[in-house]
Amino acid sequence: MTIQTTTTIGEDLIGALRAGLGEGSVLTSAEDIGGYLVESRGLYKGEALAVVRPRDRDEVALVVKECGRAGVPIVPQGGNTGLVGGGVPHGGIVLSLDRLQRIREVDPVNATITVEAGCILKSVHEAADQVGYAFPLSLPSEGSCRIGGNLATNAGGTAVLRYGNMRELTLGLEVVLADGRIWNGLKGLRKDNTGYDLRDLFIGSEGTLGIITAAVLKLYPKPQARGTAFIGCTSPGQALKLFERLREGAGDQLTAFEYMTDFGLEIVLKHRPAAQRPLSGRHHSYALIELSSPQKDADLQGRLETILGSALEEGLIDDAVISASGAQSQALWSLREDLSEVQRLEGGSIKHDVAVPVSRVAEFIEAASKACEAEMPGIRVCAFGHFGDGNIHFNLSQPVGMDKAAHLAEWERFNRIVHDIVHDMNGSISAEHGIGLIKRDELPHYKDPVALDLMRSLKKTLDPQNILNPGKVVAIGESWPTGFSAIAGHP
Amino acid sequence: MTIQTTTTIGEDLIGALRAGLGEGSVLTSAEDIGGYLVESRGLYKGEALAVVRPRDRDEVALVVKECGRAGVPIVPQGGNTGLVGGGVPHGGIVLSLDRLQRIREVDPVNATITVEAGCILKSVHEAADQVGYAFPLSLPSEGSCRIGGNLATNAGGTAVLRYGNMRELTLGLEVVLADGRIWNGLKGLRKDNTGYDLRDLFIGSEGTLGIITAAVLKLYPKPQARGTAFIGCTSPGQALKLFERLREGAGDQLTAFEYMTDFGLEIVLKHRPAAQRPLSGRHHSYALIELSSPQKDADLQGRLETILGSALEEGLIDDAVISASGAQSQALWSLREDLSEVQRLEGGSIKHDVAVPVSRVAEFIEAASKACEAEMPGIRVCAFGHFGDGNIHFNLSQPVGMDKAAHLAEWERFNRIVHDIVHDMNGSISAEHGIGLIKRDELPHYKDPVALDLMRSLKKTLDPQNILNPGKVVAIGESWPTGFSAIAGHP
Repeated sequence: MTIQTTTTIGEDLIGALRAGLGEGSVLTSAEDIGGYLVESRGLYKGEALAVVRPRDRDEVALVVKECGRAGVPIVPQGGNTGLVGGGVPHGGIVLSLDRLQRIREVDPVNATITVEAGCILKSVHEAADQVGYAFPLSLPSEGSCRIGGNLATNAGGTAVLRYGNMRELTLGLEVVLADGRIWNGLKGLRKDNTGYDLRDLFIGSEGTLGIITAAVLKLYPKPQARGTAFIGCTSPGQALKLFERLREGAGDQLTAFEYMTDFGLEIVLKHRPAAQRPLSGRHHSYALIELSSPQKDADLQGRLETILGSALEEGLIDDAVISASGAQSQALWSLREDLSEVQRLEGGSIKHDVAVPVSRVAEFIEAASKACEAEMPGIRVCAFGHFGDGNIHFNLSQPVGMDKAAHLAEWERFNRIVHDIVHDMNGSISAEHGIGLIKRDELPHYKDPVALDLMRSLKKTLDPQNILNPGKVVAIGESWPTGFSAIAGHP
Repeated sequence: MTIQTTTTIGEDLIGALRAGLGEGSVLTSAEDIGGYLVESRGLYKGEALAVVRPRDRDEVALVVKECGRAGVPIVPQGGNTGLVGGGVPHGGIVLSLDRLQRIREVDPVNATITVEAGCILKSVHEAADQVGYAFPLSLPSEGSCRIGGNLATNAGGTAVLRYGNMRELTLGLEVVLADGRIWNGLKGLRKDNTGYDLRDLFIGSEGTLGIITAAVLKLYPKPQARGTAFIGCTSPGQALKLFERLREGAGDQLTAFEYMTDFGLEIVLKHRPAAQRPLSGRHHSYALIELSSPQKDADLQGRLETILGSALEEGLIDDAVISASGAQSQALWSLREDLSEVQRLEGGSIKHDVAVPVSRVAEFIEAASKACEAEMPGIRVCAFGHFGDGNIHFNLSQPVGMDKAAHLAEWERFNRIVHDIVHDMNGSISAEHGIGLIKRDELPHYKDPVALDLMRSLKKTLDPQNILNPGKVVAIGESWPTGFSAIAGHP
């Protein structure tokens, strides 16, 4: 199949969709659809015949059937906050899930919540909170990202160390298939061995195998005690040793172990006047540590004092601060959270979202930093992120004074350097963001060819017409579109 | 394809396998292969051309290629301890993984172990223990079951409440596909979003989609403190309320919450002379509770005393004992563990392995017990198991004095009664044992037809010749064999 964008097909389809869903659910004016066409960071601008906004699962099925009949591609979209261009349309229609916002059921005894794909993550947090539970997925975009997108990308975030990715937080799904049939897999079961695991096939498939319309998610007892600390040390290797100590000494209470470097902390302090230096001196590496417990009486500050105290005595770390209040904890967390944003203020940034085995994360940071600094004098490595998961956002800020576009033009070259090191360590070139468009041509360099072939077979089996988000994740024949507009010079 | 068992094909194949693997790796005499043909509880006896015992992954691939060339089915087998007849051959060859016993790597910093499919579960426990970690999968058959079978059936057990099923304990796989290619997915990563989740497609597929030859498994900090209690109460509803209290009060420390009834405890005490009555009186329902913590200083007995003390005061439970020593804990655990075995001594038992949402587990036990007791006066309900996961082994011991075979002949009738109730509660007719043969004809009654159709599509895509464990889990065309020998009258 080639992508159909001819006017006649488009008009027939739009007529059919309007007849089925009503005028107001099918947007076509440039003004109405503009926001759906642009990738959140402005890296891509796509085009679409229309944006369709069904109200429920059955309307989603209707849209998929009509598009199948017309042979027109569908790009599902949630909050459009993805970081790999997975929601960018290239002709066809955008199917927005944003009106599927019902929380269908909360079952506190089963510790589950059943939500529709269009629910904003924060509203799920709030619904869980109301029954005394927590839904632990925690992302910078939680005020605007939607559950369907979290599922489609198997979202990660800062609580994976303790609770796992979106995959581990999900028990059941409801999915509209490429032929418009609905799979009702909305079971809230902890155990179900009745055949193949369909759920995990759709989670993380970025809308290319089916359109997730609802999910049963796990809830957890709400943390009643927290302890937060910020430490400075001389190398990522020292940070890794400290991580081991904490895992051993705090076990399940260790909820986050986030890493940043001197460069990262300094740019936060530079661009955020309200931010305060957490330790008196400067250090090569920092870690933000959080312990939490559902038990009010858990003495987490005491535990941090013990573990960090002995690490200080032995010279494993150089300095540490343990927060004495919720406000102080929040201030420490802001240093980490603001880092994602302030990089933009330092010019162009070539970004990588990689993972290696935790045992090699320090080695990776050192080797990749060295290689990039040798490749381009003055380049500023901003390595940070979910150290305890082996997941590093290995970003490269442009040398001071360099032209931004010229820096971003080097993206491919640095991909090869960084991803080769990752690959040599049996790592992953996409830890938590997915493949989408941005890594679709990078994937075949590193993915096991047998795995890629299996992926193509699965795509062909589940979407034989190739109408579900074609051109994303994995190439199928000639439908692999090229020529997406790259707004910001890359990719 | 129909199953080929003609002599010529068989002789050619066996010749090719002997040439490739050596004489000693291909067993054909009735004496040598007898043990591989019989299901562990004697429910089925199968037949096979040969039992092939490859030494490594490449030899497995060779066997699969030769069988594919000859069109001869392959039944993969680990420890042959499965409970659904998934390892019973119906012609073709048995491919035993029992010689793939290498522990390829232990990485304590990454908290992972890489093992081959033929490793016995207990040997994995021991290897983890040697580096100060635990591999938490815990099953009655752990001294003889093998990792490949644990993966193929997504095994459960008594620690799922805290650690999840085999699926949640696995990071990476190595799989020989139906065409003999090898997928190397042996990554020890906590995060990897590079395309579709192939791993979870093979886990739980009972050897019908590929042959797992190795896996990277997660290790956990070894529990350093344990607290065990045994309580009696008046109903499963009271047990459920207590479970909620424990989940709230003990959080992650709650490792097991196992349920049994008066009938279950009494038959253990009857058939195990060394067993001691744990509480002074008799009660309708009992729960075995375990808290554990990786922290030595965790006061788990104190926590149990607080929670159970207030439950006693409020009349939520009737009696409780908290173990004061490791030996006492073991004695309490034996009451639960021995229950699986002693049912056999009470005659025929019609078994169900079901799950419902945890919020409905008490309601399920009551409704199903009432329905079965009404259907057959004198039937003795033995409901027990992993209450905290919503997973009940709902077994039905024959009325005293009834003929065993006559009781077992009622299996289908009671399936319908019990499974209808499970289905009405949005539950699962196989919580942790799988489908195999024993539930293959039951599955279409309850599984969502769209899901079944997807399963068939996946089977056809991954095993187009239908040579991998055909006739198990899901029916494909005319290859669905019937006429397996049912030794013990059922199914």
